[in-house]
Amino acid sequence: MAESCKEAIKNAGGEKCPLREMLTRVGDKWSILVIFNLAHAEGPRMRFSELMRAIDGISQRMLTTTLRNLERDGAVARHFFPEVPPRVEYELTPLGKGLLVPVKSMLEWVEGNWPEIQKARTAFDAKKPPIS
Amino acid sequence: MAESCKEAIKNAGGEKCPLREMLTRVGDKWSILVIFNLAHAEGPRMRFSELMRAIDGISQRMLTTTLRNLERDGAVARHFFPEVPPRVEYELTPLGKGLLVPVKSMLEWVEGNWPEIQKARTAFDAKKPPIS
Repeated sequence: MAESCKEAIKNAGGEKCPLREMLTRVGDKWSILVIFNLAHAEGPRMRFSELMRAIDGISQRMLTTTLRNLERDGAVARHFFPEVPPRVEYELTPLGKGLLVPVKSMLEWVEGNWPEIQKARTAFDAKKPPIS
Repeated sequence: MAESCKEAIKNAGGEKCPLREMLTRVGDKWSILVIFNLAHAEGPRMRFSELMRAIDGISQRMLTTTLRNLERDGAVARHFFPEVPPRVEYELTPLGKGLLVPVKSMLEWVEGNWPEIQKARTAFDAKKPPIS
């Protein structure tokens, strides 16, 4: 990682660092689930309703917001077909596909370390609350 | 990535998948900033007040919650010294240090693609709002 960004993370001006802003996006559970579902779709594109069905627990409003943010960041392309009724399809851009690499690295870490995390939680929950 | 987790992400039972739960944690901006600051501290440990000063914009309450969640997950160890006044220090566990690898991969991706993301945003914001 560039020295500049290490500094940006540590120093007092870090609040406006792009890394801090983007972490909120790329670390967002719904964004990651949208990206993953688009990546593993049968075709290159998915309709809004297909994404709704594929992502358990997402609301229509949250999916709309998530797709809009991903489109704004250039990670997802939105294709609008002015038919009756209108058809809208979404697909990953090359940027969005690139994002899959660190996302997978994160998922693999979680998967590999899940037993240890669960063990730590059980031990933590068995302890009394700390004094301070 | 194991097939099981690809499935867990896609299928209807995904709501309870550990990946989905942990993504909220490891993708959390404050968690990542705490992990990074502990990793790049001068010594192996930092006091609460040092972390407060190092992380611009974090509230006392948010830092307390973040540290407690990371401790519960086994990523951060809390050392309590019953002095007057009591001293509390935090350090990364081996698990927490391991988490640095995917976190760095994510940060590097953001850093490398930031110009493209900004370009996409400018283009998006210049367009009229979509019809649907």
